[in-house]
Amino acid sequence: MNKTMTNVLVSALLAVAPAFAAAPAGYDAKYAADRAEIEDLQARYIFALDWQDADAYASTFTEDGVLDWAGGIAKGREAIRAEVRGMRASFAKKEAGDAPRRPARLRHLTTNAVLKIDGDHATHVAYWFELDNDGRDRWPYVGGYGHYEDELRRVNGHWLYTKRKIFNEVMDSRAAGPQNPAR
Amino acid sequence: MNKTMTNVLVSALLAVAPAFAAAPAGYDAKYAADRAEIEDLQARYIFALDWQDADAYASTFTEDGVLDWAGGIAKGREAIRAEVRGMRASFAKKEAGDAPRRPARLRHLTTNAVLKIDGDHATHVAYWFELDNDGRDRWPYVGGYGHYEDELRRVNGHWLYTKRKIFNEVMDSRAAGPQNPAR
Amino acid sequence: MNKTMTNVLVSALLAVAPAFAAAPAGYDAKYAADRAEIEDLQARYIFALDWQDADAYASTFTEDGVLDWAGGIAKGREAIRAEVRGMRASFAKKEAGDAPRRPARLRHLTTNAVLKIDGDHATHVAYWFELDNDGRDRWPYVGGYGHYEDELRRVNGHWLYTKRKIFNEVMDSRAAGPQNPAR
Repeated sequence: MNKTMTNVLVSALLAVAPAFAAAPAGYDAKYAADRAEIEDLQARYIFALDWQDADAYASTFTEDGVLDWAGGIAKGREAIRAEVRGMRASFAKKEAGDAPRRPARLRHLTTNAVLKIDGDHATHVAYWFELDNDGRDRWPYVGGYGHYEDELRRVNGHWLYTKRKIFNEVMDSRAAGPQNPAR
Repeated sequence: MNKTMTNVLVSALLAVAPAFAAAPAGYDAKYAADRAEIEDLQARYIFALDWQDADAYASTFTEDGVLDWAGGIAKGREAIRAEVRGMRASFAKKEAGDAPRRPARLRHLTTNAVLKIDGDHATHVAYWFELDNDGRDRWPYVGGYGHYEDELRRVNGHWLYTKRKIFNEVMDSRAAGPQNPAR
Repeated sequence: MNKTMTNVLVSALLAVAPAFAAAPAGYDAKYAADRAEIEDLQARYIFALDWQDADAYASTFTEDGVLDWAGGIAKGREAIRAEVRGMRASFAKKEAGDAPRRPARLRHLTTNAVLKIDGDHATHVAYWFELDNDGRDRWPYVGGYGHYEDELRRVNGHWLYTKRKIFNEVMDSRAAGPQNPAR
């Protein structure tokens, strides 16, 4: 292929690239089934997180799964379980200090999931925010918000996180970058 | 079976119990279809609630459905309808008192649905929070948050709530218990 | 048909109308697949909005799609793209004025989708709210909330918005009407 023709082809490819990047992902016949299971996984993840249920939380990751969050990077289920046990201890200590008030309740809510599936692998980006009421008046407020950038793998028929990275707009060091992560 | 062997088996079962409890629920071939319908039901429930549409709200429950919320326990569609009519009257009175300001708008938002389906029965837990703007400045704020613990039944091909219990973290008497309800 | 019989029939129809309107929508065999794709579309719409990704945002509408929002009515992809470029310019200007603080981050979250599908056409109503942190303390707050009333069409196998109307409860002129839009 001569250079001129190559240039023409490259220009043509560049011309369609933005449209291509922004085009809807391909949805195969199994997309709805996979999405339903991953939405359920995401919801189980949150309940486990907010009730500091270390086993249930770690079980949403693969054995070698990686959690990259504000507290650091935990690799593997055992390390991830330890993170949640740390949260539970921290909550228990806080509750003790708060007596005789009722316990504060931290809750995370997620939405806007963009999910791309390729066989037994998936990428998932979604939004999260948190509600907390640890002030003296126990009144709810928004305590943080951001997005996830995740990878998943189907293991023995079940979708699990292999990597979850949590961006948080209330922390300089965890704020999102300038590029749309859903592309 | 002798006692030692029984003990060994019981110990083995106990050892795997946490992993089992935390394992993903079984998702059959119809899971996505059921989940899609129940998500739509949940959304219709909310629109009916926030527009105080008593008929549409009651129609998301079975004829003998039970609503257990901050206002009490309502049993059956007629009683549930009456709850919503009570809300509407209360809102109308408030609006009258607020004149000439525009009406305040209470909105409920839900997410994080964990859904387990067994034939024509389902259990559903999910999060909710509310936004309100009934202050003098009509500025939005978070007015409550919590979770649902629900049971559903498929009647004539349609999923309906047979029981909805609403936990609310801004009320001492409606706050969540210590155990992860998504287990 | 004589007038009396017509009146009887009309009365009978009016009598069942509320129950009919409130009845669950029909969900055909493809409902879950369509809903999964439209949920993904909705999420891609939001990521594109919040990262001011004009091409990705416009690509969620049909070529002749209409966006009816607080900023006005934009008809067609090119006009919609221009709206997002305007947002980006406005954000960039704001960021420059904010230096040396980190950029504020506006994020939109959606939930409660009621989706009715009829072949290659769909109507979609859902809730949205926004979190912003453009105050001096960069602390998150709820900056707006409301609902969408949308129409979609399947074009070349992909669902796209043909019309999106955005109601916003923090603006007198964009507040919702009195009737449940999910009926």
